[in-house]
Amino acid sequence: MNFSVTILGSNSATPLLDRHPTSQIVNHLNRYFMVDCGEGTQVQLARFKVKMNRINHIFITHLHGDHYFGLTGLLMTYHLFGRQVPVTVYGPRMLEEITLLQLKASKTTLAYPLHFVTYDPDLHQMIYEDDFLEVLTIPMNHSIPTCGFLFREKLREQNMIDGVIEKYGIPWDAVSAIKKGDGYLSPSGIYYPNRDLAHPPAPPRMYACCSDTALHEPVTDIIRGADLLYHEATFTHDRVAVAHEKLHSTAFEAALLARQARVSKLIIGHYSARYDKLEPLLHEARITFPETYLATEGSVFEVGR
Amino acid sequence: MNFSVTILGSNSATPLLDRHPTSQIVNHLNRYFMVDCGEGTQVQLARFKVKMNRINHIFITHLHGDHYFGLTGLLMTYHLFGRQVPVTVYGPRMLEEITLLQLKASKTTLAYPLHFVTYDPDLHQMIYEDDFLEVLTIPMNHSIPTCGFLFREKLREQNMIDGVIEKYGIPWDAVSAIKKGDGYLSPSGIYYPNRDLAHPPAPPRMYACCSDTALHEPVTDIIRGADLLYHEATFTHDRVAVAHEKLHSTAFEAALLARQARVSKLIIGHYSARYDKLEPLLHEARITFPETYLATEGSVFEVGR
Repeated sequence: MNFSVTILGSNSATPLLDRHPTSQIVNHLNRYFMVDCGEGTQVQLARFKVKMNRINHIFITHLHGDHYFGLTGLLMTYHLFGRQVPVTVYGPRMLEEITLLQLKASKTTLAYPLHFVTYDPDLHQMIYEDDFLEVLTIPMNHSIPTCGFLFREKLREQNMIDGVIEKYGIPWDAVSAIKKGDGYLSPSGIYYPNRDLAHPPAPPRMYACCSDTALHEPVTDIIRGADLLYHEATFTHDRVAVAHEKLHSTAFEAALLARQARVSKLIIGHYSARYDKLEPLLHEARITFPETYLATEGSVFEVGR
Repeated sequence: MNFSVTILGSNSATPLLDRHPTSQIVNHLNRYFMVDCGEGTQVQLARFKVKMNRINHIFITHLHGDHYFGLTGLLMTYHLFGRQVPVTVYGPRMLEEITLLQLKASKTTLAYPLHFVTYDPDLHQMIYEDDFLEVLTIPMNHSIPTCGFLFREKLREQNMIDGVIEKYGIPWDAVSAIKKGDGYLSPSGIYYPNRDLAHPPAPPRMYACCSDTALHEPVTDIIRGADLLYHEATFTHDRVAVAHEKLHSTAFEAALLARQARVSKLIIGHYSARYDKLEPLLHEARITFPETYLATEGSVFEVGR
């Protein structure tokens, strides 16, 4: 039951030789969801051998270039490779306009369907749903309209305890209800509670991706109990004034949110180019939230168990 | 008297791990002119230690993404670094619209003046001029409006032969005319022809950059005698049908043009991602034009002497 996050890039606005702008792949049951697509993301996909054709949904947090300037290039590469499977892009207003203008300028009619979903950056709402997963927006506090994303598993079916079907003579048409949590009443009037018939499902796992943003209290409730939180930490806390001015967070603030929201694990990223070494950011966060890790390119984080 | 071309990227539409999309730096007397700015160009500038603040003029050949998707990112980095010196971008219609839309979406008011010059892709005309250099468009034959660029030095002043000023008692106010090619008539009526007074100037050097294009005969006259020609060679000639369909050139065709236009040296580039090794392209071109070289990233080519 794969659920993991691969970091493709985690630097802030100015790319460095070895630190690329933001992009991540969320792998849920081997379906790939991209979050942000900074310049050079295509090459990062190749570098880390991510199968780009598994990506059908691309979520863009906001329209600062370091979060989306690689998008149209990726869409063009899909086109040149003859992709036929649809791509859906979720973003703020203007993303569709910009992308379509670029396609128009290159006189490109894509070989595959491209859909846009424009979200309201002020709302916490579901923007994607399938049988196993839903994705919700998380309003951020940044200099332009910005949303993070919450990837939340749906409650899974229970697994039947080995042998009970035969032991109690349960008919197949009753199994589906038991897997959803029901007990079973036999024709002879004996009632078997659900706990005697099925293993409880694994609790749904959650991944919350919060970037770019100043520390934003309303986020706490939305991400409470997440198995994994990515939160931007552009600066160390000695530069908190700059962080607040630019509506970014410090490593301490990211850790504080992680602690208040009782998440299991924190990844920090979106580092300012001023930091040659990232350890000061990590050490600062770990004082407040020991389960903090650096988003380094190519690293993979499991979500939950 | 620097005049050179640095290749930052020379692959065609799909970037590879070690081959980036198109960008070049033309260095003329330590003023840097950029031609095209594909995705990842900023990082290539850093990789090859090109002083990005020396770039004041950026020429975009056409609006296929592999030639300009790095532009707004570069302009944003200048902004974040507090640049104040103006930047002028030369491109086809719609480049300004796209760039300004991206800046608007990020609510950016640049810290420096940004000028756009829209050229007519059907005309061979001068779009840039200073005391030492002029840049002219070269209409290409591609699937969307496209121009190459001709960087042409102006005729330089002659240098006075050592000692003649004192020997013939030439007054300072006559020197300027002599440097422009005049002779000198002394007060006593003796005429000294220019050849006895000054060294002839070095002939003006020319660099022609032709991409993307199918082989296009009218280019021959424009680039005739160029010291250096960059010409796209997306395919080997066994794929000439694909090349013609996509309005690209083969290595043989690039070499043929170089020979017909009597240029001194040819660089080929804009390689299709299908070529793992580039030697077949080079060998094919050299049969027709021995002075052919591969545009590899980081390589520097001198223009002329």
